[in-house]
Formats: sequence, C-alpha cells, structure tokens
Amino acid sequence: MTKVGIIGGTGYTGSELSRILCTHPDIELAALTSRQNAGKKVSDIHTHLKGYLDDLCFTEKISDTKDLDFVFVATPHGVAMQELPALADAGIKVIDLSGDYRIHDIPTYEKWYGHKHTDPEHLEKAVYGLPEFFRDKIKGADIVANPGCYATSAILACAPLMKSGLVEEEIIVDAKSGTSGAGMVPSPRLHHPTCGESIIPYSVGKHRHTPEIEMVVDMFAGGHSKVMFVPQLIPIVRGILSSCYFDLKKDVSDEEISAVYEKQYAGEPFVHYVKEPSIRAVVGSNHAHVASQVLGDKVVAFGVLDNLVKGASGQAVQCMNLMLGLKETAGLNLPGLGV
Amino acid sequence: MTKVGIIGGTGYTGSELSRILCTHPDIELAALTSRQNAGKKVSDIHTHLKGYLDDLCFTEKISDTKDLDFVFVATPHGVAMQELPALADAGIKVIDLSGDYRIHDIPTYEKWYGHKHTDPEHLEKAVYGLPEFFRDKIKGADIVANPGCYATSAILACAPLMKSGLVEEEIIVDAKSGTSGAGMVPSPRLHHPTCGESIIPYSVGKHRHTPEIEMVVDMFAGGHSKVMFVPQLIPIVRGILSSCYFDLKKDVSDEEISAVYEKQYAGEPFVHYVKEPSIRAVVGSNHAHVASQVLGDKVVAFGVLDNLVKGASGQAVQCMNLMLGLKETAGLNLPGLGV
Amino acid sequence: MTKVGIIGGTGYTGSELSRILCTHPDIELAALTSRQNAGKKVSDIHTHLKGYLDDLCFTEKISDTKDLDFVFVATPHGVAMQELPALADAGIKVIDLSGDYRIHDIPTYEKWYGHKHTDPEHLEKAVYGLPEFFRDKIKGADIVANPGCYATSAILACAPLMKSGLVEEEIIVDAKSGTSGAGMVPSPRLHHPTCGESIIPYSVGKHRHTPEIEMVVDMFAGGHSKVMFVPQLIPIVRGILSSCYFDLKKDVSDEEISAVYEKQYAGEPFVHYVKEPSIRAVVGSNHAHVASQVLGDKVVAFGVLDNLVKGASGQAVQCMNLMLGLKETAGLNLPGLGV
Amino acid sequence: MTKVGIIGGTGYTGSELSRILCTHPDIELAALTSRQNAGKKVSDIHTHLKGYLDDLCFTEKISDTKDLDFVFVATPHGVAMQELPALADAGIKVIDLSGDYRIHDIPTYEKWYGHKHTDPEHLEKAVYGLPEFFRDKIKGADIVANPGCYATSAILACAPLMKSGLVEEEIIVDAKSGTSGAGMVPSPRLHHPTCGESIIPYSVGKHRHTPEIEMVVDMFAGGHSKVMFVPQLIPIVRGILSSCYFDLKKDVSDEEISAVYEKQYAGEPFVHYVKEPSIRAVVGSNHAHVASQVLGDKVVAFGVLDNLVKGASGQAVQCMNLMLGLKETAGLNLPGLGV
Repeated sequence: MTKVGIIGGTGYTGSELSRILCTHPDIELAALTSRQNAGKKVSDIHTHLKGYLDDLCFTEKISDTKDLDFVFVATPHGVAMQELPALADAGIKVIDLSGDYRIHDIPTYEKWYGHKHTDPEHLEKAVYGLPEFFRDKIKGADIVANPGCYATSAILACAPLMKSGLVEEEIIVDAKSGTSGAGMVPSPRLHHPTCGESIIPYSVGKHRHTPEIEMVVDMFAGGHSKVMFVPQLIPIVRGILSSCYFDLKKDVSDEEISAVYEKQYAGEPFVHYVKEPSIRAVVGSNHAHVASQVLGDKVVAFGVLDNLVKGASGQAVQCMNLMLGLKETAGLNLPGLGV
Repeated sequence: MTKVGIIGGTGYTGSELSRILCTHPDIELAALTSRQNAGKKVSDIHTHLKGYLDDLCFTEKISDTKDLDFVFVATPHGVAMQELPALADAGIKVIDLSGDYRIHDIPTYEKWYGHKHTDPEHLEKAVYGLPEFFRDKIKGADIVANPGCYATSAILACAPLMKSGLVEEEIIVDAKSGTSGAGMVPSPRLHHPTCGESIIPYSVGKHRHTPEIEMVVDMFAGGHSKVMFVPQLIPIVRGILSSCYFDLKKDVSDEEISAVYEKQYAGEPFVHYVKEPSIRAVVGSNHAHVASQVLGDKVVAFGVLDNLVKGASGQAVQCMNLMLGLKETAGLNLPGLGV
Repeated sequence: MTKVGIIGGTGYTGSELSRILCTHPDIELAALTSRQNAGKKVSDIHTHLKGYLDDLCFTEKISDTKDLDFVFVATPHGVAMQELPALADAGIKVIDLSGDYRIHDIPTYEKWYGHKHTDPEHLEKAVYGLPEFFRDKIKGADIVANPGCYATSAILACAPLMKSGLVEEEIIVDAKSGTSGAGMVPSPRLHHPTCGESIIPYSVGKHRHTPEIEMVVDMFAGGHSKVMFVPQLIPIVRGILSSCYFDLKKDVSDEEISAVYEKQYAGEPFVHYVKEPSIRAVVGSNHAHVASQVLGDKVVAFGVLDNLVKGASGQAVQCMNLMLGLKETAGLNLPGLGV
Repeated sequence: MTKVGIIGGTGYTGSELSRILCTHPDIELAALTSRQNAGKKVSDIHTHLKGYLDDLCFTEKISDTKDLDFVFVATPHGVAMQELPALADAGIKVIDLSGDYRIHDIPTYEKWYGHKHTDPEHLEKAVYGLPEFFRDKIKGADIVANPGCYATSAILACAPLMKSGLVEEEIIVDAKSGTSGAGMVPSPRLHHPTCGESIIPYSVGKHRHTPEIEMVVDMFAGGHSKVMFVPQLIPIVRGILSSCYFDLKKDVSDEEISAVYEKQYAGEPFVHYVKEPSIRAVVGSNHAHVASQVLGDKVVAFGVLDNLVKGASGQAVQCMNLMLGLKETAGLNLPGLGV
C-alpha cells in the first residue's frame, strides 16, 4: 500500500487532506508534520479525526518518516519550494498545494508573490493539477502544482467558453469565497465581528490567483486573454461562487452555450453543468457545479465548489489518484451535503 | 406638526418607516394600516417599538385616520397603484416605496412587472426619489417613487462615472444582498437551511431593478446605456454590496476616477466616497459608501448601503424631509453601527 | 443485496438518507417516494446526488417498488403510523424517523402529539434506536423508532450520569439547534431575516422531545427523572449543542465524572468523550461529542452532533446496519468536516 | 456643554461610545485616545463616523485634552485602574467600562482577574452602574463601574425573582453571546472558520462575570446566592441571550412570576418584560427584553440585549446622563433595529 505523508499537517489544507486520506481505500497516511504539534497525537489536535488516526502522531520533519512514496506539501508559498526539491530528487512523487509551482513564467511569479523563485528546475516539470483539463499530463507527472481555490472555480466556468471561440478574451471574475479559504491564522478581516455580517472586497487587482487564472485560460484562448479578478469574502465557512462575465463575439443562444459546457463535462465524475448552481449541493465534497446564462450580448457563467475540497485537498487527492494509477474517484466518491 | 400615515405597516419597509419616524422631531406618525393586525397595538406586533408607539394601533384602511398630511405607501407593487390615486387626488403628498411609479415608460413597466399599469396619470407626475441626483425635483414633488434597494446601490456607484463621460455605456452590476431585501414572506430560497451558508444567484436577467437602473443611468449616459444585472443572495440580514464593472473609454488614472466621485459626493450628508467600503459601517443608518478602483482598461465601483434604510425607508424619509421643507437629515442623523 | 426504500424522499431526513445510502457498500437504494415529485429524477431535485442516483426516479407510493427488504419511513409524525403497519405486516423491516413509535406510553404520546395513536400493536414491538444504549435490542428488532435529534444529543450526555447514580433526577437541558432540524417547510421563524442574526427560544415546555428524553433517561434513573427542556434556534444550518445541568448527590470530582463517560463510550465508534466539544468536528458525520465539567455541587454535560446525521438519518443507517447484521459503521465510516 | 473624553477609542466599547455620543444633544465629545492611531482622524479609522466626528483626531493621552468634565475609561481591565485615579483625583467624573471597579471584595477580584488590585481607594467609592437597580446611587456617584455585558443580561432576568423571595438561591445561567462581546483582537476562537457555523462553550466555570453576577444577585437574595455561569459563543455579531434557571420555593403560577417582572420594569424606559424575547428587537439600541416561563417547580427567565449597547456603551451613557443630571434617555432614545 502506498505510504503517503503531508508536510504542514495543522493548517486547513493539511487537515482536510488527512480527513480525506484517513478513509482512502488504497493508501496509508503515514506522516503528518507540524513544528508546533510535533509529538502530539493527530486526533488530539484535529478532534474530527478521533477514531481514524488515533495512533498517528505529528512529526517535526517529513524525513522523520521513512519509505514514503508520496508527499503532499501543504505549507505557505515560499516554504513549499524549500521542501519540494529534496523530495522530488529522492524520487518521491509530490503535489504542492501552495502557489509555488503553478506559474511557469518566473518573472510573473516573482512579481505577484513578491519573492524570488528558488527552484526553477522543478518548476519546469510541474504539471498544473486540474484533472478536467490536464488529465493525461497529470497521470504522467512526478510533480503536480495543485490549483488555487478561486482559480479552480473560475477556470471550470471560463475554460470551456474560451475553447469554444464564442467569447472575447477579456473576462471579469467577480468571486465570493467562504472564510476558510483564507487559512487558519486569525486576522482582523477574518475576525467574526468584522466579516460575520458583511461581504468584503479585498486584494482587488492584487490577488495572486489573477495570473494563475490568466495563465490557464490563456491556454484555451489561443491568444492573450485578460482577467479582471475581484475577490470578496462572504460569511460562510466553506464554498466559493465565481461569477464570470464574457462578451459574446456574435449572436449566440443560451442553448449553444449550454451545449458547450455539457459536452465538456459530460463524462466528468466531479463537475456538473446545472441549471441552478448551489454551494450546499457540493459542500463537503469534491464535486463542482457550473451554470451559465446568456443575457443579450454577454454571458455570465458560475463556478461553484467547496474551497477546501475541489478547491484544494480533494482536488489534490484526485491528482494523486491519477499519478498513482488508482481509480480517479478513490476516497472522493461522496456527494455534497445538500443541506 | 405634520401628520403622517403608512399603508402597509407590517412589512419590512413599513416597519422600518415606523422605526425611523417614531423619533422624528418634526412629524407625528398617526396611522399604520394592516389588514391582518387591524385593532392590535403596533408595539405588540413590532416589539422593537415598545416605549415609542405604545398608544398607536393598526387600522384597516388609511382613510380610517383623518387629516393626514403625508402618506407612505409600503405595499407590494400592483397594490400601490390602487392606493395612491385617491390620496394624491385628495391633495395628500405621497411616497410610494413599491416599483409602481418608478418606470415612466409604461410598456417597459408592463413587460417587467407582468401586469397593466392602471394609473398613468399620476405616474407622469411621479419624481424618482434619489436625492443625491434629483434633489430639486423632489423638493417640488407631490408624488415620489422611492428607488429600489439594489437600484440605489448601483446608481450611486454608476451615475457619477456615466456623467463623467469616461466610461462606455455597457455596465455589469454584480449585486449581493442581505435577505431582508426579499421581504417578510417566508419562501424556500429565504429558508435559513437553504440560504444560511450559501450565496444564491437568482432572477438573473429577470430582476425588476434592471430597467430601473438602466432608466436612471441612461439619464446621465446621454445615450443608451445597457445594464447586465446579476443579483445574488448572501447570508446577512441587512446590507447590499453592488460591484459595478465599466470599460474605460481611454487611459484614465485611479486618481481621476476618485476625483469624479469625490466631487459628486463632497457635500452629501449620507453618501461617502471611501477607500474600503463596509456594510457594517452603514448598517442601521441612511448612509452609503461608494468606492472604486481602476484595473487596466476597466473600473470596478462598489455601492454599499443598508437595503432597508438608504435602500428603502430611510431614503423615503429623506425624500419626505425634502418634500416638506424640513432639514434633509431630520430623523436620520445617525451613524451606522460600525460593528 | 438488500433492497432499501424510503418513504418521504424529498424532506431533509429522506434526502439525507439518500445521501448516505447512495454510497453504502452493502445495500441498494431502490425506491424513494414523493407525492409532489413522483416521476422526476431524484438527482434533478436533489442536485447534490448528481453522479450517484442518476437512474432513480421518485415514485408515488412505496408499493410501486417490489421486493423491498427494508424501508425507512421519513414522513411527519401522524403520517408514519399510517404507513408502517402494512410494511411491518408484510415482513419488511422498518425504521421510522418520526416520533410515532418512540413513546411507548400511549396517553403520553397523545398528550404531547395532540392526536390519537392509531397503531398500538406495532408500537409495542418498536425498539428505540439508540445503538449506544440499546444495541442488542436493535439487532433483534423488526421495527425501530429512530430517536429525535435533540433527544439523542441530550441522552448521550445524560444517560451515563443517570446510570452512575451520582446525580439527582432533575435535569435541565438547555439545547441549541441549527435550523435544518426544523425541516424543509418555510416558516416565519426559519425565515432568514428572523433567525439569521439571532437565537430564538421556542416551544419552551412544549417540545415533543421532552417526554422522549424523560422516557429514556428514566430507564437509567431507576426512579422518576424529570427533564426541563428549553430548545433554542441558532443561526447555523447543521448541528446541536445540548447543555445539560445536574445536581450532584454528593461531592464528586471532575475526574470521577469523566471516568463515567470514558467507560461508557470507550468502545463506541461514533461517540467520543472530549475536552472541548465541537460542532464543526462532527458536522457532516455520524459522530457525536460528549464533554462535562463539575462546578461546585453541579455538573454541566454537553452533547454535540449533526442533527441530520447522528441526530436523524445517520443514526437510522447505523440501526439498519445492526438490524441487517452488517458492520455497524458501514456507509458511515467518515470523520466530520472539522472546519 | 459638558466636555467628554474616552480613553481607549479604537476598541469596540470606545468606538460604540463615540457612535452614541456623536449625536448626543447635551455633551461634546472632545477627546478619544489611541496609542496606535494618535494623530489620525477618528472618522478615517471608524468610517461609520464619517460626517459626524470629521474634525476630531485621536490623541495619545487623555491629558492631551484640557478641561474635560467627564471621562469614559474603555481599556482592558488592569489598565483601567492605572488610568482612573488621576482623573478621579482631578475631580473628573469617570465611568470605567472594564471589570476593575465592579467587584468590591478585593480577594474575589484578585482571584478571578489574576492580578493585584492597585486602587482600593477609588474602588470603595465606585457605584455599580445598573440604573434599573441602583439609579439613585448612580446619580450621586463620581465613579461608576459599568456592568459587564453578560452580567447585565443575567441580572435583569435574575434580580427581580431574587427580590421576590419566590426562588431558591442557586441559579444556573446558560448564556449565549455574539462575537463582538469578545473585543476587537483577533483570536483562534473568534476566527470566522472556527465560530461562524458553531456554538462554542468557553471559560466554563472561569468567566469573570460569574462573581459579578453573584455579587449583585446576592444583594437581593438576602443570603448567599450561588451562580453557575456557562457562557457560549454564537455566530452573530451583536446580542446576548441569557437563559436563567431557578428552583421555585413553592407552587407559583406563571402569572405570579410575570407580575413580579411587570412591577419591576413597568416604569423603565429601556427594559421591557415581553412574551417572546428577541435579539433583533433590541439590537443597535439600549433596550433590553426580559421574559419568563414557569415549568413545574422551576422557572426559566431570559435576559436579552445588545452586548455593545445596553451591555456596555449604551448603559455607560445612561449612567453618564444620570451622573450629569441629564435626561436619562438623552442620546439613547432609539428603538432597536427590529429586523
């Protein structure tokens, strides 16, 4: 059985990986690292894992555990590119959940992330881990850069239309995210009295998922797409709704647009083209909803998902399954909560 | 002292009018009608009014109270145009909070509202009650059509740019509203388990505030503006954030756009151009925030307000003050909650 | 493979049963009834089930499906006792999720539920479906009455102390429930503007889970226990926290009380005695948390669960597993969301 | 006009004091201190005060402003007792919003607050600022200790019954508070992903309002009352509901208990005895609701208020009005939001 480790086991994506992997039928979750919790029982810190990982303790470093076959790097960006090289060079397959290996253009990375990229060598080999569009590449990859939560929701809504050639290359993405997307570190914006009864635009024009969405959408635009990305925090814990606006190149019916999406996602286990997208229908699961509507000479398309699952750890497990030759849905074969 | 009545005293806008008017220094709230609560004490139904309107009881019809000088019609659209004619013809000044007297083009009204307009005579005289843009007309009006909540938030953000001539005439309004905007009648979408942990797009391309925003923005566009309006329900009780997207006609700096807004709202008591718009800063008050940011060849502008106050009953009281020659801020001179 | 049906497939408990059963390894979900949705595809109504029950359609009556081995009755009380007799008499094992078969004392049932009990015959055979206390009886049962959500949370916290003999027989249960516990029918109390930013006591002294808690706790009290039950609605979708207050009979340490719970729940797969109970740790799962603290001559004990899972449909599946001789955790072996 | 200052102008209680005082008819808000914001415009930090305190800037120390007649100390406990002596000795009337001057028994203070009390001299003179029970003393006081938010909600529900002699002296207070009660400093418990969809018991048996409630209730118990206080965080921004449980000494009807409360609060401008207590009815205002219900040989009484207004800054202004011989309701004469 494949032995899997997680670097960064206390944060939300690391915790969510543990939640999914602890019942995964084909792998053994053998290591979680945490500097602050090293030595403690995982299920004493993550009490939702009581009954699942009761014998596992956090370790200080990933190298404390021998013979790992696969490692998830669930650290902040900047830290990830310090951890990944040694693993990759040791022949361990890796998925990085930070932004460090997503942007292949190094100047773009350095401009948006504000520091040098110190690992161009492995960056070159990293595959962008969005299975619905890069399934084959992921299957053959040793290093996968797991997409951002906002980026996944936007790309699922945007890429099919871009491929279709029916829309112009300027896109507006008005995105709304639950608060868990911001991570576990308390901050003034995430303080409940501030955000609990409000909707807060932030990082307008500065959010790092902007170049990521542009990079991927651009692959399908066949030219130079341009994304205006406006993220907004809403008072829910899990879930993203990205409302994406396009100009139609010509008169196109609602049915034609629907057909584009239906064709794209017909065989997908986790992405569903629906009439009424619903966060509650996908929350807690690796499923995503896409919906669209033509209004005059424009289209709005909605991408909906659970930011911690299809927007992070679930998608990473989906990629792991592909990389390991397992069933793509293994460990993820569950519907959303619904209510 | 001016005697004021409210038709429709149990709904949210009627209740909110009572809340504001019960401490207004220059008027007497003399009548609230309610078919279902006729005869009951107002403060037994609206327990937040205990200590304020303890002697007032709901009446069945507005004509049950004599010598009213001013009446607010806070009924659903369709009903309002059955109530208003008699009042107006009796020389009573009236503000209608429904959509019945907002749209002056009757075919447009009938298309969006789905029924005949039965009172074209008074419609012609009705003034659109947005003081920041139509203050003088409101002062001289006998009939005012109080703007919609979404419409107010969008117009405050859009009209200055339209007037400036710096932006193209196609606008995307991605609006997010708290649940009280939908009124007091329970429905599946407003059921807490459905909307309490979600964000729900609805009435996309079909919401009645679309032609209202277009009508008003158009006055400043000097041509034919076009608004794509996408409303979304968010799990807060009070508050709207409308994110409005424009294409710039030419290279314009962030400072130039800011200057447009600052000039527009410099002397306004209730509308503030700010760096970081905040629902919590205006909630419970008649204040509104507007903010903007240039991103490449586009601008996003945010309009923020409390849908029940500046988006409904507070704005109506502001209009009443103008119509009666009172201080515009009378009864409304309070900051938002902040937290 | 066991063929399972659900009567009442559109409501929250029926929908939640489908969500759990559609990936259950040992049974086939073969029928969901719904008068209003008969003929429609289940996954068109419950969009979270897309990809799972895509071939199943709602039927009008449970008898429309032949050869069912097991049926869940997920209808309102009063209706359940009209449906159950035919099934039971046909030799189909049944779990009723309503209150109809919980209270064995018929006058008590009729007093609290306000109508006649029309099926005393099967009532007599019904076993109360709380596996942690009645596992063996459930294994041998043909009819199980699935406990109420509030009742489960309270009993898990109360029963061990009652059995211990350390506490007096009067208990105060101050319970707080998320809104999904009230079902899917919109109502003024569940209207988001009413409950979304509030906590609302309701049915104080009149809630039907009162006699249910008393009945079960009494089995362990060995005398006549008395429960004061005060339910309160809180603005979360899923989750219950019941704070239960007891008078100690004598000086008892915090450790002694902890030992009582630890002994009780040591081997349980789904109930965990913890230091800090957390709704987020159990939400979406069949797990429950219990915690306690001695304060002077009193103890407070907390019972925490997801009202739709351990408080309803998950517990029902746990009982089904026992009744069918399956692994008790089959289909339920998942941790809570954690965040 | 009375010149008023606030020490600690950035925190929630200081900000809320500013919100109330900026439209108070009889005083001038002349100073707000803030170490971190000294020199900045108040309305640039507290954007809800735009249009109200536009000329006022934060100062470093309260002594930077001359000729103040009245000062509110809105600092954390421990700090307050370092600030108050100089003010009081200079003949400035003072209200302290921290816990430093509430508990007159110094060993009790030191046990619960964990540090020495360094100002026993002024502590002796401090009057507990709950006008409904200590109005006359407050009128004559130079130093007022403003009650805690939880304490106010509990005492309003408990004191009348204690005075009545109808109930035993042991009380259970199961209290639920919105998140703003915890102040503006971000922390893991107040992090939205943690508390936004949960209810969290905390500081059980250790919360500092316990001895405060006991001290005050004891004045009416005529003996030694004992309070078991269990605070719980709920996901609303403003509002407290305290559910208080009593044993009746003898058979007492619901009507007799109601009569006790009605007599107590009949003439009060801000406290209302109601059938159905509602946070939304009082939120944003200085009003409070009290309700009660007899169940067998016990009573539950509910105390409901906005923790930042009647639970903190509004009550402080009410006390200030009394101390200055102003109308008790000046600046506070507003109903709650209702919705």
